Amino acid sequence: MRAGKDQPPGTPAAVQGGSRLDPYVDRYAARALGMTASQIRALFAVASRPEVVSLAGGMPYVAALPLDVVGELMGRLVVERGAVALQYGSGQGDPALREHICTVMELVGIDAHPDDVVVTVGSQQALDLVARIFVDPGDVVLAEGPTYVGALGTFAAYQADVVHVAMDDEGLVPEALQEALDALAASGRRAKLLYTVPSHHNPAGVSLSPERRRQVLDICRRAELLVLEDDPYALLGFEGDPLRAMRADDADGVIYLGSFSKTFAPGLRVGWALAPPAVRDKLVLAAEAAVLCPPAFSQVAISTYLQDYLWLEQVKTFRELYRERRDAMLDALPAALPPESHWTRPAGGFYVWVTLPAGLDATAMLPRAVTSRVAYVPGSAFFADGSGGASLRLSYCYPEPERIREGVRRLAGVLEQELQLRETFGVEGTAPGEHSGGQPGAPGPDLR
Amino acid sequence: MRAGKDQPPGTPAAVQGGSRLDPYVDRYAARALGMTASQIRALFAVASRPEVVSLAGGMPYVAALPLDVVGELMGRLVVERGAVALQYGSGQGDPALREHICTVMELVGIDAHPDDVVVTVGSQQALDLVARIFVDPGDVVLAEGPTYVGALGTFAAYQADVVHVAMDDEGLVPEALQEALDALAASGRRAKLLYTVPSHHNPAGVSLSPERRRQVLDICRRAELLVLEDDPYALLGFEGDPLRAMRADDADGVIYLGSFSKTFAPGLRVGWALAPPAVRDKLVLAAEAAVLCPPAFSQVAISTYLQDYLWLEQVKTFRELYRERRDAMLDALPAALPPESHWTRPAGGFYVWVTLPAGLDATAMLPRAVTSRVAYVPGSAFFADGSGGASLRLSYCYPEPERIREGVRRLAGVLEQELQLRETFGVEGTAPGEHSGGQPGAPGPDLR
Repeated sequence: MRAGKDQPPGTPAAVQGGSRLDPYVDRYAARALGMTASQIRALFAVASRPEVVSLAGGMPYVAALPLDVVGELMGRLVVERGAVALQYGSGQGDPALREHICTVMELVGIDAHPDDVVVTVGSQQALDLVARIFVDPGDVVLAEGPTYVGALGTFAAYQADVVHVAMDDEGLVPEALQEALDALAASGRRAKLLYTVPSHHNPAGVSLSPERRRQVLDICRRAELLVLEDDPYALLGFEGDPLRAMRADDADGVIYLGSFSKTFAPGLRVGWALAPPAVRDKLVLAAEAAVLCPPAFSQVAISTYLQDYLWLEQVKTFRELYRERRDAMLDALPAALPPESHWTRPAGGFYVWVTLPAGLDATAMLPRAVTSRVAYVPGSAFFADGSGGASLRLSYCYPEPERIREGVRRLAGVLEQELQLRETFGVEGTAPGEHSGGQPGAPGPDLR
Repeated sequence: MRAGKDQPPGTPAAVQGGSRLDPYVDRYAARALGMTASQIRALFAVASRPEVVSLAGGMPYVAALPLDVVGELMGRLVVERGAVALQYGSGQGDPALREHICTVMELVGIDAHPDDVVVTVGSQQALDLVARIFVDPGDVVLAEGPTYVGALGTFAAYQADVVHVAMDDEGLVPEALQEALDALAASGRRAKLLYTVPSHHNPAGVSLSPERRRQVLDICRRAELLVLEDDPYALLGFEGDPLRAMRADDADGVIYLGSFSKTFAPGLRVGWALAPPAVRDKLVLAAEAAVLCPPAFSQVAISTYLQDYLWLEQVKTFRELYRERRDAMLDALPAALPPESHWTRPAGGFYVWVTLPAGLDATAMLPRAVTSRVAYVPGSAFFADGSGGASLRLSYCYPEPERIREGVRRLAGVLEQELQLRETFGVEGTAPGEHSGGQPGAPGPDLR
């Protein structure tokens, strides 16, 4: 049962899907039984109306690209090299692009060989392929709490048991990781992977400090735990050089995922995995069974763009643009959030993570926020266990600064109403986990 | 252990991969243990050399596209609509493209609503998603014998038990299907899907007759067996109108897969699934977990091409071109094949299926063929059970007619040698199944 994006705005998901009988229900695979859409999808159909300021989505601002240059380049490559760009390609990905990818990864300290790169349909597919080759139903995957909602969707599709590890303003807490491993060992279980977004975390808006990266790698090495390092925001830091990837210091213990979605364009769907040779071999075979090969056109287009255009200058343009939007949001938040709120101050990436005072429930509040023409993603969407109810993710990547300020003002109004209600009626708020709306289910591509 | 496309040509797979220890071997998921590359991959690395006439691959002849027109169109759409074409899109696919897809499906008699279409990363991803939502490990999937090698790869990735159903020159044999179902029922098992390529079958080069389509649908309806109709060659018939799809006569019992890879360009990776609403809902959720969304750029490009260009005229050009190549192959085969050989006479699509006289083994013969500078795919690649050893698939889609004739001449020389060896030494050939080389494993994208 699903409802959402394609339903008329305002039609609750439950009404659309709840009463429909599924005649195929006795034939699905076990893994499909958990594939249900979250209730917040229906709300986001409403939130995509132009009058709503969406601080929910994670869409990069591709309008800042030099569209005339990119258009000319793409047109030319079809005319001159169409017989290759429009044809099937290698399952592992175009060799020229894999060389470029290695050059890109040098910026985060990684010294890799193109043979060890697998090009994927966005880094989401890399996540899917890694889960496919490592995760049996019931296997434990460790992940930050909160974590990327799209990863939760993928892990759920492979019936993984996601165990969250606490974070603070410096990212994943190494002691919490060790404790989680100890607790698993004590119960006779072993984790298959640590999934982590160490730089400019989605949704938490923090980065793992260099010292902690070393500690986390040490802990994982001792536990023989593979690290799955997801690094789409690597080049979108606002201060100084890009952060050194964990993979740069451990070639055997880390699978590194990268993406062109945030530095160039998500509509081409090109990401990659860098993996130790044995794992890479399995990834290629899994990719071929899944899609035969990634889009040749997209790959040739990106290779040409990286080669013919000063793409790092364009990344700088993106950084400046996102920094300005982050500033707009951080400037507006103090006046908007109730006392005792906490929020992160991202040094890069797309997101601010807000934690409201105890008693406020961001999931319960969302319908009222959408009515007030502002949208966000409730924190519980980023946890597999229903926690995070007092938190929410605000994204600043897509709206113009003035819209961000307006959105935060509207949010302030919603919060004020909530607090008044609470004072007047003594409502204590609902306990985290009581709302099904925030369960991961599938994220919807506008929530990555 | 894998070897193949990225190894130096001529290096046997076993040497490359056989002695390498895989330090992650105790951590893979059960489904990954069967992910091994077939030995024929190494051979095909050699076969891709320009001096080899490849009758192996299934690459459409995209050079016949009006590349200047397509280039202009793609360039323009980035300049004019780049903010959409380069952005994330809907997980179900672009609504405008889904409307076009319904118009395309009208050509095979299907009356469908765009809401029931899911756009996928090639129809290979549609196959993967259907398997993902229906196939538990050990589940039975019925499929023609031979069947599409890429489907075997996907079903293997989901640990399905593929049971082949016999074909003849009119396609799948209904009585054989009924027998297979009866045998399964007798052993207390039930098949989840019938996977079929009814029109211009890959690799068999035959089509299911209209009368048999009715019979097969009847049998499946009675058995409550879902049909997975894979129809990439629908519009590439050389005689008369396109064949009416099975889906046109059963909306609830058939999931229909289509593709733009053969009518336009595989390098954009766009296919689709048309499914009953409940199944479609699961497919969308599975697709989002797998890749978030299909490439927006590819989808907008195809929509624009279908709308602005006389694309059916281009399909006609493709048809004429492939017909001429088929004729070249069929003209050359009688003089090239030994007496008692059998081969199909395709009325569309890309492939001729050749069965050699008993005692000849197409898998064992392949290395000698490649040495003689001609390549084909041995028949055993198209069976999950190791049969098909006396058969081979010859494709006529990519090489020019003169190259096809030359390739068939070279093949004739190889066959002559084989027969002489057999006469001189009394070699009886090896029994089908003795060679591991033809097991499906992953097909490699050049073998679709």
